Amino acid sequence: MAATSDWKTIGLQKRQSVLDKIPQEWRLPAATLAEAHEANELDVTSIPRDSGILTADEITITENYDATALLEKLAAAEYSALAVTTAFCKRAAIAQQLTSCLTETFFDEAIERAKFLDEHLAKEKKPLGPLHGLPISIKDSFNYIGQETTLGFVSFVGGKTIAKEHSALVKILLDLGAVLYIKSNIPQTLMTADSENHVFGRTLNPHKLTLTAGGSSGGEGAVVGLRAAVLGVGTDIGGSIRVPALCCGTYGFRPSASRIPYGGQGSPGRAGSPGVLAAAGPLATSFRDVRLFMETVLGHNPWSYDHSVLHAPWRSLTTPKTLTIGLLPIDPAFPIHPPMRRALDSAIDKLKAAGHTIVPLGYVPSIAVANQQIADYYSLDPAITPFKNIEASGEPKIRSVAESPFVSKRNGKLDMDDLYTLNATRTQCMAAWHKIWMTTGIDVILGPVCETTAMPHDTFGNTPYTTLYNYLDYPSIVIPHLKADKDIDTGKDFISYKAYNPEKTHGAPTGVQVAARPLFDEELLDAAEIISKVLES
Amino acid sequence: MAATSDWKTIGLQKRQSVLDKIPQEWRLPAATLAEAHEANELDVTSIPRDSGILTADEITITENYDATALLEKLAAAEYSALAVTTAFCKRAAIAQQLTSCLTETFFDEAIERAKFLDEHLAKEKKPLGPLHGLPISIKDSFNYIGQETTLGFVSFVGGKTIAKEHSALVKILLDLGAVLYIKSNIPQTLMTADSENHVFGRTLNPHKLTLTAGGSSGGEGAVVGLRAAVLGVGTDIGGSIRVPALCCGTYGFRPSASRIPYGGQGSPGRAGSPGVLAAAGPLATSFRDVRLFMETVLGHNPWSYDHSVLHAPWRSLTTPKTLTIGLLPIDPAFPIHPPMRRALDSAIDKLKAAGHTIVPLGYVPSIAVANQQIADYYSLDPAITPFKNIEASGEPKIRSVAESPFVSKRNGKLDMDDLYTLNATRTQCMAAWHKIWMTTGIDVILGPVCETTAMPHDTFGNTPYTTLYNYLDYPSIVIPHLKADKDIDTGKDFISYKAYNPEKTHGAPTGVQVAARPLFDEELLDAAEIISKVLES
Repeated sequence: MAATSDWKTIGLQKRQSVLDKIPQEWRLPAATLAEAHEANELDVTSIPRDSGILTADEITITENYDATALLEKLAAAEYSALAVTTAFCKRAAIAQQLTSCLTETFFDEAIERAKFLDEHLAKEKKPLGPLHGLPISIKDSFNYIGQETTLGFVSFVGGKTIAKEHSALVKILLDLGAVLYIKSNIPQTLMTADSENHVFGRTLNPHKLTLTAGGSSGGEGAVVGLRAAVLGVGTDIGGSIRVPALCCGTYGFRPSASRIPYGGQGSPGRAGSPGVLAAAGPLATSFRDVRLFMETVLGHNPWSYDHSVLHAPWRSLTTPKTLTIGLLPIDPAFPIHPPMRRALDSAIDKLKAAGHTIVPLGYVPSIAVANQQIADYYSLDPAITPFKNIEASGEPKIRSVAESPFVSKRNGKLDMDDLYTLNATRTQCMAAWHKIWMTTGIDVILGPVCETTAMPHDTFGNTPYTTLYNYLDYPSIVIPHLKADKDIDTGKDFISYKAYNPEKTHGAPTGVQVAARPLFDEELLDAAEIISKVLES
Repeated sequence: MAATSDWKTIGLQKRQSVLDKIPQEWRLPAATLAEAHEANELDVTSIPRDSGILTADEITITENYDATALLEKLAAAEYSALAVTTAFCKRAAIAQQLTSCLTETFFDEAIERAKFLDEHLAKEKKPLGPLHGLPISIKDSFNYIGQETTLGFVSFVGGKTIAKEHSALVKILLDLGAVLYIKSNIPQTLMTADSENHVFGRTLNPHKLTLTAGGSSGGEGAVVGLRAAVLGVGTDIGGSIRVPALCCGTYGFRPSASRIPYGGQGSPGRAGSPGVLAAAGPLATSFRDVRLFMETVLGHNPWSYDHSVLHAPWRSLTTPKTLTIGLLPIDPAFPIHPPMRRALDSAIDKLKAAGHTIVPLGYVPSIAVANQQIADYYSLDPAITPFKNIEASGEPKIRSVAESPFVSKRNGKLDMDDLYTLNATRTQCMAAWHKIWMTTGIDVILGPVCETTAMPHDTFGNTPYTTLYNYLDYPSIVIPHLKADKDIDTGKDFISYKAYNPEKTHGAPTGVQVAARPLFDEELLDAAEIISKVLES
């Protein structure tokens, strides 16, 4: 085991190397940098625009379009891929200096690719693919040839995790014409809602630096929240796409497992887990970009890239325009904080006013039990590999890992009998939920994303309303809606085991979560499109 | 534990109760019955026709049509459901007396339902559903309200397994208009290719009573092989649909797991297994009936009946008329017997002559290793529940269970570490196979079903070429083709660890197996349709 000084040095050196790759002319002034720290209650979302680093065109490119609109401009050569890529590289560099949202950057390679795409368009008179020239950010866990996949483990630094092959999804995105340029930060072990590690530091929430950006795709949340990308890719085994989406005010979609290629990623754990499956999916600034991501990736035979992708081509539907929406009951064990309550109530009111039917679900299987069960599923590995990966360098656990609610008390001690029991219980739970769908005739379920908005660092804790859907393998989407307001969400009468502090969370984005049955991703997105339009109105 | 005499008595009493439900006028003469035993090398396939029990019309109904053709006659009221049901009930009674292929019979209830269907058609001027009036046989494991699901365990006899609810698939078949009338025999534990147990005895092969009918859906094989049903439903976790199909000369299709509802069945084992998934699927007398089964069940929202069914609606395709067919290499550890070799060679020759391309696959991941691995997957339960269910009555293991190659040496002793390793190895194997598909561009894989034809009782042993596809979760279909012939398949130069005896297996059906990637069931059936037409020509 390395000495204590070693792990600190290794981490700091790696962190410095990321910084070193940012050109001088993209650096923020010292005064701004001095303000960008985790104890400052600062909203940094306007700093990229005001920094003087971006040209007027680059501000327009990064702020005025979603991916769908940008792709139209790119295909029509109204913007060159070079201009768009340069704009987002610069904005990503700024975002990194403000929130530590990145792990690896490969700006030069991205610029080269943008030039290649521009030449292609000029020569062939048509885009390379439906994502021609679009910069897309990816979570650190994805392998990109030539870049390290350290996952924030100090023990993974030093060259041994340099990717020799792209992840399957990376290959597809490139084949579709996208430009990749950055990988985004994650928590040590990828199993907390605080994206902190001893290699890349802690990702801060762009809306308020004292708050978490969420996790485990917290870097991705901050990137998309700051429009350092308008489309990003995360992964989710308990809320790791949806929690950062909530915290950073973006859309975030966890598809059913095995629809978007997950293969060829780095992993903090051990191959061969018989536990719940993680899923890859998008974070975006608009609802339609979520659909764009799903339809372009599913439209490109992902099962040819990754054996573990379900051969389930994307279906086009005629969804009823008037929805019957089940309302998830709040589990008394997990009361939701006033701003989240207000966001949900607002959604309900708006949906009712728009003519949709809200059906409060009566009895549902215990959400608390599902949470205990999934913690056991996370904790099956007798070798406790993620902790071994921490210990290998001598680095300590970060606070949110040390206090993790996602690690079972039986971590590493569950045996085959336990697994049979877990599986049988999960099947019963799935069957009970199935019965609810069949008897109520609901199209989707509406409910909270989490009990809380983004919380002060290291206090987010568990995520019962997102993990529920991992346990059930329900596709589920976060739709941003409103923001916490200390004057409205006073919380005078609110009691919870998770402290609610109206002052500290003032200004944090809120949102709602919509879910559907496994492999009803298409039905879910059709309904979510209707819902998001109602919430925006 | 019960005394030895008890289990024998309980088994014999139950067996007698099945016999007692056969009306006197449907009983075979004593002289015929005396010949129907497992030591007699008799082909009984013509006995139903010659027995004098069936009317001329009933012979026509049961022998001249497949399910598709029969349904046309039923829908047009050219045959009444009553006539068709009566014919198949009678033929099933004869089949039972010849081969012990049944467990439960509910002829009276079936006749009542047939009358109801006839009334419905007369009144509504349209069939109840696409399977209106079609008698379908189901494996004993399916629950049918009011019938026992003993699975051939003596300890399950006595009322405690009387079904209070239909299995999901039973519900669907009834909703589609089918008539259910019999459940079919299986091996003790459902984990051998010899359908024998101490409750219902041993199912004999209708083509030669000295041979196995296969297993675990061996009763179903004999039922369909004798046309006591033209469509039957089995389940398959290692070959349990395909081995009986081969042995009894029928089509047999194991779909990808979780496409056909598997839920609500009785089980010889323990709920919650993290091992490979079993699949339900059809045995049929024609290829098009396999398609009929898949399209009608998948066309009826099976995911509304069973939460575990994948929401993957059946896809209509345009498959190229000229196929590129990968040829599975024979594993040197599992040489195939001369009749199976001849069937495969004949198929290859015919397909080539018809203009299709045969691509012999070079390296493939070890089939032997896949077989060892799947035996471990079958053996994960620390409680060894199937054996407990045997011991509970004091009955002994049947010979093929005692000698089973499907039970790992580590039965009940595998731990979580082993499971991680198994899963990781399986994933690697799936990825390696995926690469083969991607690099060769093949449409399907052609290969043997088993090393052997139906074998003398209790000598079938392992099934490496069917279990391979359970391990990979590849949909796979058995297409019957030719029969063993002692004069051609002399086996003079053939050496194998499994004894080949041209005399003993003379007349046994042979066939080939065609497989595709997971959830490429539609592509597989389109290709298999082309292949089966070529083989029939």
